[in-house]
Amino acid sequence: MLPGINDKFSESARTMKRSAIREILKLIQKPEMISFAGGLPSPLSFPVEEVKEITTHILETQGAEALQYGTTEGDPLLREMILKRHAGQGLNAKPENLAISTGSQQALDILGKIFIDPGDYVICGLPSYLGGITAFNAYRAKMKGIPFDDKGMRIDLLEEAVQRLTDLGKKIKFIYIIPDFQNPAGITMPEERRLEILEIAERYDLLVIEDSPYRDIRFEGTPQKMVYQLDKSGRVITLCTFSKIFAPGFRVAWLLGHSDIIDKFIMAKQSADICSPVILQKIIAEYMQRGLLEKNMGKTIALYRRRRDLMLECFEKHMPAGVSWTRPEGGLFLFITLPETINADEAFARAVKNNVAFVKGSVFYCNDTGKNTMRINFSYSDDELIEEGIKRLAAVINGMIAEQDNS
Amino acid sequence: MLPGINDKFSESARTMKRSAIREILKLIQKPEMISFAGGLPSPLSFPVEEVKEITTHILETQGAEALQYGTTEGDPLLREMILKRHAGQGLNAKPENLAISTGSQQALDILGKIFIDPGDYVICGLPSYLGGITAFNAYRAKMKGIPFDDKGMRIDLLEEAVQRLTDLGKKIKFIYIIPDFQNPAGITMPEERRLEILEIAERYDLLVIEDSPYRDIRFEGTPQKMVYQLDKSGRVITLCTFSKIFAPGFRVAWLLGHSDIIDKFIMAKQSADICSPVILQKIIAEYMQRGLLEKNMGKTIALYRRRRDLMLECFEKHMPAGVSWTRPEGGLFLFITLPETINADEAFARAVKNNVAFVKGSVFYCNDTGKNTMRINFSYSDDELIEEGIKRLAAVINGMIAEQDNS
Repeated sequence: MLPGINDKFSESARTMKRSAIREILKLIQKPEMISFAGGLPSPLSFPVEEVKEITTHILETQGAEALQYGTTEGDPLLREMILKRHAGQGLNAKPENLAISTGSQQALDILGKIFIDPGDYVICGLPSYLGGITAFNAYRAKMKGIPFDDKGMRIDLLEEAVQRLTDLGKKIKFIYIIPDFQNPAGITMPEERRLEILEIAERYDLLVIEDSPYRDIRFEGTPQKMVYQLDKSGRVITLCTFSKIFAPGFRVAWLLGHSDIIDKFIMAKQSADICSPVILQKIIAEYMQRGLLEKNMGKTIALYRRRRDLMLECFEKHMPAGVSWTRPEGGLFLFITLPETINADEAFARAVKNNVAFVKGSVFYCNDTGKNTMRINFSYSDDELIEEGIKRLAAVINGMIAEQDNS
Repeated sequence: MLPGINDKFSESARTMKRSAIREILKLIQKPEMISFAGGLPSPLSFPVEEVKEITTHILETQGAEALQYGTTEGDPLLREMILKRHAGQGLNAKPENLAISTGSQQALDILGKIFIDPGDYVICGLPSYLGGITAFNAYRAKMKGIPFDDKGMRIDLLEEAVQRLTDLGKKIKFIYIIPDFQNPAGITMPEERRLEILEIAERYDLLVIEDSPYRDIRFEGTPQKMVYQLDKSGRVITLCTFSKIFAPGFRVAWLLGHSDIIDKFIMAKQSADICSPVILQKIIAEYMQRGLLEKNMGKTIALYRRRRDLMLECFEKHMPAGVSWTRPEGGLFLFITLPETINADEAFARAVKNNVAFVKGSVFYCNDTGKNTMRINFSYSDDELIEEGIKRLAAVINGMIAEQDNS
């Protein structure tokens, strides 16, 4: 240990931990492991050939620009393509409502920076995306978690919590939600619930961060309006990304918000990384201009739908009574709830011994609950691995329940 | 204005301003402008053909990995190549001393996050890189600037300032230096000065951030040891980048430091952008493995040396008496000092009217001084533009001096 280094770290740094998920991923890196732990898109969804062709084209036609610094706001053509796509979905955002970010994770980080002072409150779901919690924690936010029903955050409990914090004189900065195919719960909020959350945000004058990485990966049912579209007063900031519909290795994402917020966001991004990688923005812009995004997305959706279906089938077949799970209409994850007496930490240790892995649901609970829950990714593993993996997992859970019954 | 938004922004966000340099760059975007303002590498230095060939190769041999998420630590081959290159330069760093960042700007931002609590002091040069000052300001550091002599930060004044702040019970977190071809001053610290700064850091137990983006772009003279190499106690963190020796549009950089610091850095980077773009890291790794980095760098150095020489010639020829400038042994910038009575703000306004631009030196002074200084970039403009641009600039300065003599 470097002498005295702990006195030099900031208050923020002293409480930082390595991401539980990324540490799990390291732990389970062996070939015989079947992993439902990561949030990885399937490599089958990556448009490798198209990227190859387009990169050559970009370097031949605008090589110098592609390798040079770009504006913090983002590549002009990419910005145009994104706004056009939104317009086609009925969302008319203006250029001043749009910023490009280096992955949605950067957007979460910068939103933390521009909104959170130490001790400010952020409302999030129980459970909620770990990367969001960690980003806000780094600015020393206090996270207040709101339990879910099958439509998302429970409105009665949300209102109660907001009222109580307000009464205590606490400053709440925003409500953080993932309304479509929530990570980790796989739940989608119906329009009614979105409106109810907005109504509370309105009444208590709160911002809403709508994190929407999975929205385009819908298998069935009717797309719900983005909370951004339902909002009338400029209090919603929506994060979208190319990570799940194109490729995460590009780290290109975007966000929509009121121009005053986007303006501040861009100031903060200037000192965070100057600009997102220019060449990658240009590749995606060209890819969109060629109409390849929607085309390839269709294939990705079909692939993930099949994998979700297979996984649900395997659950039906192998999981013991008392175990329940969500049936997501899209996205990458579903969420398992074990009998209350079964601890997912213990299940994890046994599962890893049996060469199958998942993420303990508790890491997504900012209040240290959720001990009997597990997040399962269905986008990454192929059919054979899904069947074998769920068999192994069910055997572990069956074993734990049987032991308990016998004791 | 979104009602009440200023009450929602964090203390940090409320004091943020757009980067003065990037706003200048927007202001001067017209074809007839000759700009010495930006810090842009020459497009002639970009290995467009090689990148094209290598990208195709990467996508054909490891397409799926290149488009997938990667580790926060960085691409294994890129890390290996960087350590090998350092070893060849006599610097034996271990894997745990290395992290990849999304440009050095991200490294500055994250170091701010992990070290600075509001009110902590950071020592920097007068002048100093604006992006560094802005990054630390965003964490509400107090910047204490130390004037320069021709070898860099003045040691007597550094010691005096550190002692005074210490006596006042202030917490100083680090000394921020750019020892090679400083931005903006173009000055290189000799080894003696580096050792003196280290000695003070040692005595007062301070960290040192050595920002070293230009180090490899040396035209003449003997390379000085990196402060990182001179340090014996793990208190130096060094930032290096591919922006000036390869291409800034890739946003790939790296840093070296004590393993305890790098470890914390990686935790913070996990929530800042998960990982730097994987495909770009792989392209650079392959580029280095093929031995192209040193080869192309030779051409870049020759090009910039010629441009610096030409610029110095033009200064000799056209600049009036009373104007002085630095003669950098490398890098991208030189620094002009006007007679004390001549204001560079006014010179800037007149220069822009005459279609030539630079950056007012005052933006690099955290104490709002340097009103008679200007930063000039010599890497970007070609010979003809340098000759014509310096003529125009000299005419503006001549005019201002003549007016003053007549008044």
